[in-house]
Amino acid sequence: MSPINHQVRLAARPSGLPRATDWEFTSETVPAPAQGQFVVEISHLSIDPAMRGWMNAGASYVPPVEIGAVMRAGAVGRVTASEHPGFTAGDEVYGAFGVQEYATSDGRGVIKLDTSAVPPATYLGALGMSGLTAYFGLFDVGRIQAGETVVVSGAGGAVGSIAGQIAKIKGCHVIGIAGGADKCRAVVEEFGFDSAIDYRSGNVRKALREQAPDGVDVYFDNVGGEILDDVLTRLARGARVVICGAVSQYNETQVRGPANYMMLLVARASMTGMVIFDYEDQFPRAMAELAGWLQAGRLVAREHIVHGGVSDFPDVLLMLFDGANTGKLVLALDKG
Amino acid sequence: MSPINHQVRLAARPSGLPRATDWEFTSETVPAPAQGQFVVEISHLSIDPAMRGWMNAGASYVPPVEIGAVMRAGAVGRVTASEHPGFTAGDEVYGAFGVQEYATSDGRGVIKLDTSAVPPATYLGALGMSGLTAYFGLFDVGRIQAGETVVVSGAGGAVGSIAGQIAKIKGCHVIGIAGGADKCRAVVEEFGFDSAIDYRSGNVRKALREQAPDGVDVYFDNVGGEILDDVLTRLARGARVVICGAVSQYNETQVRGPANYMMLLVARASMTGMVIFDYEDQFPRAMAELAGWLQAGRLVAREHIVHGGVSDFPDVLLMLFDGANTGKLVLALDKG
Repeated sequence: MSPINHQVRLAARPSGLPRATDWEFTSETVPAPAQGQFVVEISHLSIDPAMRGWMNAGASYVPPVEIGAVMRAGAVGRVTASEHPGFTAGDEVYGAFGVQEYATSDGRGVIKLDTSAVPPATYLGALGMSGLTAYFGLFDVGRIQAGETVVVSGAGGAVGSIAGQIAKIKGCHVIGIAGGADKCRAVVEEFGFDSAIDYRSGNVRKALREQAPDGVDVYFDNVGGEILDDVLTRLARGARVVICGAVSQYNETQVRGPANYMMLLVARASMTGMVIFDYEDQFPRAMAELAGWLQAGRLVAREHIVHGGVSDFPDVLLMLFDGANTGKLVLALDKG
Repeated sequence: MSPINHQVRLAARPSGLPRATDWEFTSETVPAPAQGQFVVEISHLSIDPAMRGWMNAGASYVPPVEIGAVMRAGAVGRVTASEHPGFTAGDEVYGAFGVQEYATSDGRGVIKLDTSAVPPATYLGALGMSGLTAYFGLFDVGRIQAGETVVVSGAGGAVGSIAGQIAKIKGCHVIGIAGGADKCRAVVEEFGFDSAIDYRSGNVRKALREQAPDGVDVYFDNVGGEILDDVLTRLARGARVVICGAVSQYNETQVRGPANYMMLLVARASMTGMVIFDYEDQFPRAMAELAGWLQAGRLVAREHIVHGGVSDFPDVLLMLFDGANTGKLVLALDKG
């Protein structure tokens, strides 16, 4: 008997925070794979701030999710049936499989995983797109150098927690910005940042003046909004601002642009956007380096795993926007 | 008998557009130069949007003009008396002499000019800070390449008009953005841009879609505000935004940040600030190249010269902010 595939589809384009009515739940039988295809049973879904952007109409770095389509998501799972020469039942794989229980794939963009030493969820976080984004953002765009002062926002999140750790490994002085005392404690004690600034309880600009008295050489920004404006006032000469995300703005109907952007002129600084897909040909090298740090205990991979079904996806997604997660947010699918 | 030096001093820090009460007019006798000094009789004052920023308190790329101090200004003039071994009465010179009729100098930052072939006012425009800003902004920050599409805002202004012409000389496709039909006509017919967009009469975003169908590779921004936001939506992959100025925002108490800054991510683009003083050691080379283009008729130097006394400075400065000038705005001092 064919298994049933439960799916979450985009029903409407949200204005502001996604609501229940923006989603549709569907189910269909899982077809046997055609020649050149295989079927994956998904075990873990990656829950990412970028998902909010994919729900909007209009040109971006990837096409929007179409109304009625299965919501886009990175995921890991296990091959259950294959008519593809490169994949065998039992293979653990990563791919953009979507918010559903089963996916049919022709293998494009799918990576085989070694889960003997590293748990599957880590391939969504430290060894997945989050870790790779931190890696290339710091090295290629931020061009970090030992001894520089690096500030990371969203420091308790999936990308930020790895970014700060990589900057520490490379000999930088690293300051994290995060929301709440618990997260700030994790940023320093668990992820090893030199210090943390709780943007909910204090004046970020004042804290930066104290913690980065010579200015900020590299700012890795995941949040945008007021925090970006605060950091812009503290840039060192020649600073690099890496624009990775703007989670504070994704649900705003009116985006707040950085009013202090002329500090780029004062500091002779640059602000540069990045998209991780551009580095695909360098993923193996970066993943090997990240895995090496992980196995040597120099990199802490923390996942915030929520167990549930695909129908829990809408609520789990919202956790990102009130900052409920520390580390990589993952929805682990428990079936039946 | 010693001549009288009429001066314009900063009386108060303006909020919004500078008003009459923000200025103070003083006069004093011109002292004989001490050993190592010389006296310059100023003939032409450079009138620049950046002046508005110098009037504000707070850290910037130069210290603010102090309350009570002679207003900072670049100027050209002629040495009338010298006790300095490097300067002789009759020398034509450029320096930051301030808004006054006579300046005493020790020679620091002063450049001797050859006014036999080039009129003095051109050393404030095409062969002065304006031309140099265009030159280094395009080459060093914008890294323009032949065949690229370059957009210049404030295209009828001192820096913009030169920037567009340099980009044309280097084989770029050049689009100017300016305010009003007359200015747009000058941008195309006099300065030789490929086309112009009148931001006062049309939709900049729509015009860019038509005139730069493959996107904008380099945006040289002199104005900020809504136009910056419009151009951000049309960036080509890997575009460079050169932040030279933000004249639309200098008199605003609330600066409008670029709400579309996340297009830097979509386009993998960068936005970088520049300050011309950083290139001082390369000025001679750049001035020689600019002078060569000028003498070969490849570069048009247009000055908008207002004749008057230093007491006219406050009104002439305001011309910049309603876009009254085409080309370099200069106050030529007619005495007596």
